[in-house]
Amino acid sequence: MIAEIISVGTELLLGHVIDTNSAFLSRRLAGLGISVYRKTAVGDNLARLSHSIREALDKADVVIITGGIGPTEDDVTREAASAALGVELVEDEGVLASLRAFFAARGTPMPESNRKQALRPHPHQGRLIPNEVGTAPGLLFEVGGKVVVCLPGVPREMELMVERHVEPYLAQLVAGNEGGGVILSRILKTVGIGESALESRILDLAHGRTNPTVATYAGRFECEVRVTAKAPSKDEALAMIDQVEAEIRRRLGALVYGVDDDVLEGVTGYLMTKAGATVATAESCTGGLIAGAITSIAGSSNYFERGYVTYSNASKVEELGVYRETIEKHGAVSRPVAIAMARGAAARSGARIGLAVTGIAGPTGGTPSKPVGTVHIALYDETHCTVVSARMGFPGDRTSVRLRSTKTCIDMLRRHLLQHWTVEIACSESKSHPAG
Amino acid sequence: MIAEIISVGTELLLGHVIDTNSAFLSRRLAGLGISVYRKTAVGDNLARLSHSIREALDKADVVIITGGIGPTEDDVTREAASAALGVELVEDEGVLASLRAFFAARGTPMPESNRKQALRPHPHQGRLIPNEVGTAPGLLFEVGGKVVVCLPGVPREMELMVERHVEPYLAQLVAGNEGGGVILSRILKTVGIGESALESRILDLAHGRTNPTVATYAGRFECEVRVTAKAPSKDEALAMIDQVEAEIRRRLGALVYGVDDDVLEGVTGYLMTKAGATVATAESCTGGLIAGAITSIAGSSNYFERGYVTYSNASKVEELGVYRETIEKHGAVSRPVAIAMARGAAARSGARIGLAVTGIAGPTGGTPSKPVGTVHIALYDETHCTVVSARMGFPGDRTSVRLRSTKTCIDMLRRHLLQHWTVEIACSESKSHPAG
Repeated sequence: MIAEIISVGTELLLGHVIDTNSAFLSRRLAGLGISVYRKTAVGDNLARLSHSIREALDKADVVIITGGIGPTEDDVTREAASAALGVELVEDEGVLASLRAFFAARGTPMPESNRKQALRPHPHQGRLIPNEVGTAPGLLFEVGGKVVVCLPGVPREMELMVERHVEPYLAQLVAGNEGGGVILSRILKTVGIGESALESRILDLAHGRTNPTVATYAGRFECEVRVTAKAPSKDEALAMIDQVEAEIRRRLGALVYGVDDDVLEGVTGYLMTKAGATVATAESCTGGLIAGAITSIAGSSNYFERGYVTYSNASKVEELGVYRETIEKHGAVSRPVAIAMARGAAARSGARIGLAVTGIAGPTGGTPSKPVGTVHIALYDETHCTVVSARMGFPGDRTSVRLRSTKTCIDMLRRHLLQHWTVEIACSESKSHPAG
Repeated sequence: MIAEIISVGTELLLGHVIDTNSAFLSRRLAGLGISVYRKTAVGDNLARLSHSIREALDKADVVIITGGIGPTEDDVTREAASAALGVELVEDEGVLASLRAFFAARGTPMPESNRKQALRPHPHQGRLIPNEVGTAPGLLFEVGGKVVVCLPGVPREMELMVERHVEPYLAQLVAGNEGGGVILSRILKTVGIGESALESRILDLAHGRTNPTVATYAGRFECEVRVTAKAPSKDEALAMIDQVEAEIRRRLGALVYGVDDDVLEGVTGYLMTKAGATVATAESCTGGLIAGAITSIAGSSNYFERGYVTYSNASKVEELGVYRETIEKHGAVSRPVAIAMARGAAARSGARIGLAVTGIAGPTGGTPSKPVGTVHIALYDETHCTVVSARMGFPGDRTSVRLRSTKTCIDMLRRHLLQHWTVEIACSESKSHPAG
């Protein structure tokens, strides 16, 4: 079965409102095994809306429309759907009575324009969908083997109607159709590898494979792999996903940091908590962003001890105990200074782990031997007497260099914590993984 | 002129990603006087995408497509646009060379699939749109009086390309369409006031006025007022804008922090530099984000001395010299502790100004007298022996509270610097401006 989604409202075309309804509907339809071919947003315009509905019905078995079923002049979805399908609407006396009761309870007469909220298809062409939290019921048309569903634009009303009425109805429809089933997805989240390199490692899994499908997406200095399976039942779909996930993880190893809603800072925080470790940060070019990222996680006060933003050379000496001679000899952006900062942060704060970064974020300050984007990161672990460090050459502007540095530093902490737990992650990989 | 927007990506149809790009584009097109008739989202499917482009071209003069111009097999927008328009693409040697250089700098060979990112239309059928923050350039087709623009799906890359290249191009196109005039816009940026309060202060300027138009937009804890004028010449358009801007500034005063590309941190940095002042930060709930925001500006090392992220009580005592008794008596989230942190940051670092924040970002840690969102901010100025402080009650989740706190703290610094320069900004306003 194929579906299209139409979102109605001039405010969508003006960009004043971001359409989240269609994403909600997409996820629910995917869960039922219904493929969404297209989503469209159109304004409060009768001719253009009914044209869009007709276009959608050319290809789709189910068309779901949100918005435009309120009481105002602007609300034209009922008329557009009935025009596109060539069916007439009749007034529902029960709904009209309950609308009148709604206004009577508020002590005001019902505006005449509200009357159109009582319109519904003839019983053999469809029915009303009850709205338990608003005045406007939805409409469901069944005409010539096609289904058109009209829902409110208010997310809470729409979602409740979908969950209680539309989803069960469509599930029955799918079950009646041969080849019904469910579609499920899982996202594997990676850090430290670009999209094309990622794809090349799993190209054979992504290619020419229709079920499950494997696709890569680039995010903000991260990439994800999405595995989507279609199967007669949820358990079968999950088993198919598990199998592909295992193969992807085998190939990508520690590049995969989590799944679905996981975020890097959260996964790292979980590892910190499990290890019972504490961390202090010492930042130069990132200027506080690493501490900011670590503390974005609720509960991070259990493992984040404190942070130093040592922008000036004097502050590196005074706050972290970096030797002035080290800075003079190697420069503030150097491996020895990064290591001294990490050790200093741990020693001064009493945290087990010190995490440090010093680099040239640009746009100025670069030299031939240390161009903009040169970033040294270091981790010192008091318990394991370990120092891990890396020199990075990051592309992009000041913001990119700072954000990549932040991401890479937190990933270094994650990999360090992982390494002391498992034998699967080779030390060498942890110590020299490439720029993300 | 009429436009349609097409968002490309199977992840959109699966509901895994919410499309914010089309809302951004809608606002920008509206600002140029271009009407958006429809927005469509389609999957990574060559046939369906080129069909949608052809459908859009039936009605629209301009079709803007986001997504699907990356290096992977899934990325079919280039091919779909050229197929829909019936034009061929050629390889751009300059782009190919810079792609190769990009990979060479990373010490890896360029994957063959990246090569298609160097494709562009023949010079008489369009051109490339430079991408200053990513590898994939955009494409602009001009064929048979129609314009098709292909942009990346990554919001930051797409937005920058629109602002720097697509908007100026379309503005000229609109002006050419309407007999050689120009359309110019200026954005007044405000902080510390919500959109509806802002709109109510300038409602009479925004309403029923067609030239110049005045419109408000809500951004990320900021709002902007966009003034757009249409006139036969640039000078006339600028004069019209100047006049409206003066009236808006008269009403909004210090709420307006800048224009166009100004960012709050940059304007504040400019004031710091002019004042020859230095600042040190002491952060609890913001966890480094204030230092991170200040140092987002190139050249901030001239005025940012250092930062302390004192998450634990011990670190507030040890790093900033806050008395343990002050914390015990008033709690870590209190005005006395915020002030002591600000004074401590200045005293310990030798910076003239100390800027501090302590608050409850949530989701846990709130009490009836100090609910989640309670944030104390303080500024101490050594030269002027001044303390400014405020208690905020911010709405929203952990991220919102942290980002609002950051914004408000930097605005407090800006207003403090302004106050010591001009008599226009009343002290009272500076000391008790409302939550943003």
